[in-house]
Amino acid sequence: MTTASTAGAMQPYALTLDRFIDHAAKWHGAVEVVTGGSGGATVRIGYSALRERSQRLSGALRSLGLAPGDHLGLLAWNSQSHMECWYGAVGIGVVCHTLNPRMSPTHLAGIIHQAANRVLAVSADLTPLAEKLIALCPTIKHLVVLEEPGAPTVLPDCDRVRVWRYEELLEQRGQALAWGGFDENTPAGLCFTSGTTGRPKGVTYTHRSNYLHTIHQLQADASGLTARDSVLVAVPMFHANGWGLPFSGPAAGAKLVLPGRHQDGASLANLINTEGVTVAAGVATVWLGLADHLDKIGGEVPSLQRIMLGGASVPQSLMDRLEQRLAVRVQTSWGMTELSPLGTVTPATAPVGKATQSGRPPLGVDLLLTDADGAALPEQRGREGRLRVRGASVVERYFGEVESAVDAEGWFDTGDLAIIDRDGNVSITGRAKDLIKSGGEWINPAEIEAIIGALPEIALVAVVGRADPKWGERPILVVEPHKGAHITDEALLDALRSRVASWWLPDAIVRVAGMPLATTGKIDKQRLRAEYR
Amino acid sequence: MTTASTAGAMQPYALTLDRFIDHAAKWHGAVEVVTGGSGGATVRIGYSALRERSQRLSGALRSLGLAPGDHLGLLAWNSQSHMECWYGAVGIGVVCHTLNPRMSPTHLAGIIHQAANRVLAVSADLTPLAEKLIALCPTIKHLVVLEEPGAPTVLPDCDRVRVWRYEELLEQRGQALAWGGFDENTPAGLCFTSGTTGRPKGVTYTHRSNYLHTIHQLQADASGLTARDSVLVAVPMFHANGWGLPFSGPAAGAKLVLPGRHQDGASLANLINTEGVTVAAGVATVWLGLADHLDKIGGEVPSLQRIMLGGASVPQSLMDRLEQRLAVRVQTSWGMTELSPLGTVTPATAPVGKATQSGRPPLGVDLLLTDADGAALPEQRGREGRLRVRGASVVERYFGEVESAVDAEGWFDTGDLAIIDRDGNVSITGRAKDLIKSGGEWINPAEIEAIIGALPEIALVAVVGRADPKWGERPILVVEPHKGAHITDEALLDALRSRVASWWLPDAIVRVAGMPLATTGKIDKQRLRAEYR
Repeated sequence: MTTASTAGAMQPYALTLDRFIDHAAKWHGAVEVVTGGSGGATVRIGYSALRERSQRLSGALRSLGLAPGDHLGLLAWNSQSHMECWYGAVGIGVVCHTLNPRMSPTHLAGIIHQAANRVLAVSADLTPLAEKLIALCPTIKHLVVLEEPGAPTVLPDCDRVRVWRYEELLEQRGQALAWGGFDENTPAGLCFTSGTTGRPKGVTYTHRSNYLHTIHQLQADASGLTARDSVLVAVPMFHANGWGLPFSGPAAGAKLVLPGRHQDGASLANLINTEGVTVAAGVATVWLGLADHLDKIGGEVPSLQRIMLGGASVPQSLMDRLEQRLAVRVQTSWGMTELSPLGTVTPATAPVGKATQSGRPPLGVDLLLTDADGAALPEQRGREGRLRVRGASVVERYFGEVESAVDAEGWFDTGDLAIIDRDGNVSITGRAKDLIKSGGEWINPAEIEAIIGALPEIALVAVVGRADPKWGERPILVVEPHKGAHITDEALLDALRSRVASWWLPDAIVRVAGMPLATTGKIDKQRLRAEYR
Repeated sequence: MTTASTAGAMQPYALTLDRFIDHAAKWHGAVEVVTGGSGGATVRIGYSALRERSQRLSGALRSLGLAPGDHLGLLAWNSQSHMECWYGAVGIGVVCHTLNPRMSPTHLAGIIHQAANRVLAVSADLTPLAEKLIALCPTIKHLVVLEEPGAPTVLPDCDRVRVWRYEELLEQRGQALAWGGFDENTPAGLCFTSGTTGRPKGVTYTHRSNYLHTIHQLQADASGLTARDSVLVAVPMFHANGWGLPFSGPAAGAKLVLPGRHQDGASLANLINTEGVTVAAGVATVWLGLADHLDKIGGEVPSLQRIMLGGASVPQSLMDRLEQRLAVRVQTSWGMTELSPLGTVTPATAPVGKATQSGRPPLGVDLLLTDADGAALPEQRGREGRLRVRGASVVERYFGEVESAVDAEGWFDTGDLAIIDRDGNVSITGRAKDLIKSGGEWINPAEIEAIIGALPEIALVAVVGRADPKWGERPILVVEPHKGAHITDEALLDALRSRVASWWLPDAIVRVAGMPLATTGKIDKQRLRAEYR
């Protein structure tokens, strides 16, 4: 190896996240980041000005005592100030610890404690939750309140903690700091998975892993963002980096539209039409709300070309409705907090696929199907297996853990079941832990859910196991029909009869008006199991 | 900094080039690499099989004594076996030293000597040149002859050197080797710039710099390749990595079409139509030949959507003709061997620009305009300056040199002049060394060339300086009119009169039937200067 003689052959270029906003400020300086607020109010800023404010925020954060490696707690909706907090923090090596406001105060206090957050930045309407957390978390010394366009801000009165209005902090302490100059393996983000079971586990993203995730994700077959796109980020920034869009937007010079806390159909329709949104990202329920709203008012969203859908697999009927009602292309995808989050995505330029397919892995992500013991399946195509992942932006070890999260060959076990077809298209077929063991044989709830979910009367569906003295476990079918739709038990069972083994037919059918959802927007199966025990 | 506590947070993932072909083999295994040969013959192979053969070639190269850090000499047209040589070499840390067959044997022998090549792989029709080189280069011990589809191979008889037919080498020595496992800063490629002046200088690409170049270039606004593209690589692989397409093709899962040594209009039209080419890359003269051929036979290339044009700025008339005759979108670009090569590119999705514009830098490339002394221009927009570059895939130090090729702030001086408009669009306005100093003031030949080149009668144009006793230097205009086209001296001067200062008007006008071209396809100004001295 002649590394010594070629050191310095090519220029050093650290893969750090400040590159994205530097690039956007210099080459797309007038392209805007727009934040939606209350009553249709918006604030907007160009990337040049956003960079300048973020560098001033770096100085302010430093003045509050945040040093490289420290964690900035962020309990906030998608907004300009939230994005300034990201770049202001990571530019000086401070780690963004995003907190999900839908987690319980106890869970949140636990992870704030783990990360030793001394500064907490919160959206104005989340200050009541912040007050609870401050009472539980003695580490917190500063509370920074991010204001919302169009809404009055009431600052809480907290003992022991200094409360700052965001703009006041910027004005009083905002001495611009230069960015970068540290190693690309420096941590940049911390995100705890808000799974439905077990205690939350934290994933530490590094500058390098997020940079690589961004450019792998920017490939034309994945997000494919361009400088002519206007991107609605309806996935919260506290969910796995907002799917990386606050990084890939400026990297591509795309306009970003951040909806604040307003994810209802009317607010989103208004933002899409006012800001000429071309690409929108979020979970299915959000776009269902948009379609419902447009149906109600008879509206359209003509600028919208594409929806990047993630979070969970969707029924074909829902996908068809979105594509037809919104006149868009739906890109299904699969990801996890542990994957930064992109695992697979339907190519933006491919013929429209089936809703059950989650697409293909981009360069930078590799997949392996194994049996229950973790041994690679000898045949990787056309067989269901447990899905393991390796890649440039995949977790190796959870925050604060000693044990590795990967196996001896470096694969991370996702806990998902999947089938990969001959052409390399991945279908997530279920969660290994959701499998129901009946009479010693496995029933896969996801297969039943796909069939029932395809019925036009059904909005949401879940199958969970119930303890059974004879069989060990038996399946229960829980459905939420569309408003006003009716379907008999017999019709539901009929739909299944020709498609699954007879012993897979559910023992009971439950109708609910509102399916319980977990903090990620996924159906809360843990709660369903407890309820229909 | 808490690097210690976060080491191992995310998985290790070395940015090495074997990733591209691994990804293609696993996820796009049936997508083909097609090579055009003599008389319309082709050979084709899927990425899976290409990977398997390349791994066997690794074993064969090892058996010939090539160890990590050694250079494999490659004197070859674009073909499957050439591509297998690339991946077979880099997969085990051997460096691909691409040689330009249009350079003189003396120049080639000099750089073979510098790189101490012991193995030389050559296209079958280049064996006469190889024999000359072997006579000049005692380091060469093995000659591997890459055969051409549809053409007989005559093996040369060389003293001292073992001559291998490529397939024979694979068969006899092709024990597959595993790839990777080395540092991403390991050298991967060596390419000497075949400039028109001075002695050739080598650029050492590393795995990391080429990997980053590939994914930066794959952004939707740059090459934007997808798995549904069929890409005609009409830029030689010995020109700055074939613009990186042998890397980005498999990385995106795109089909690659390699024309061998056949770059004439008829061969290219045939390949485009047979292989459903959607994107083609090469210099303007190649596409001009294609348009001429289609005019002659009344043919069309309906599958072709886009041409990536590079090498030199083109007259507007030529670009208009290509866009209209071929019914394609032309993407202009600017690059250099030292930039791997991408510097700027017109976004694939933007409205069609002017031929004089070279586009915008993608993420990973940064630009600075300076004065003649290297000081940054205080205003970077709307002013002409000398262009400097910094980035992830930009040279820092030439091969074998002790001195750095960058300034104190890390910028590489391209020697080009450029203007950047308000929106960040870059126009290369000339070469600093081509400027003509007349009466103490500067004349920029490129500005005169742009005006004359836009005239419908003119195929190629160059302005060079001639020594003048009174003014120091005075401009000479050299034009190559289109076949059958006529234009008077007065008409040429008239075109200039209202557009440039009167003292910029050339002192003499020369008409040539064939403009002298350098080995890169650019006009050989050095020769023109010598001729019209």
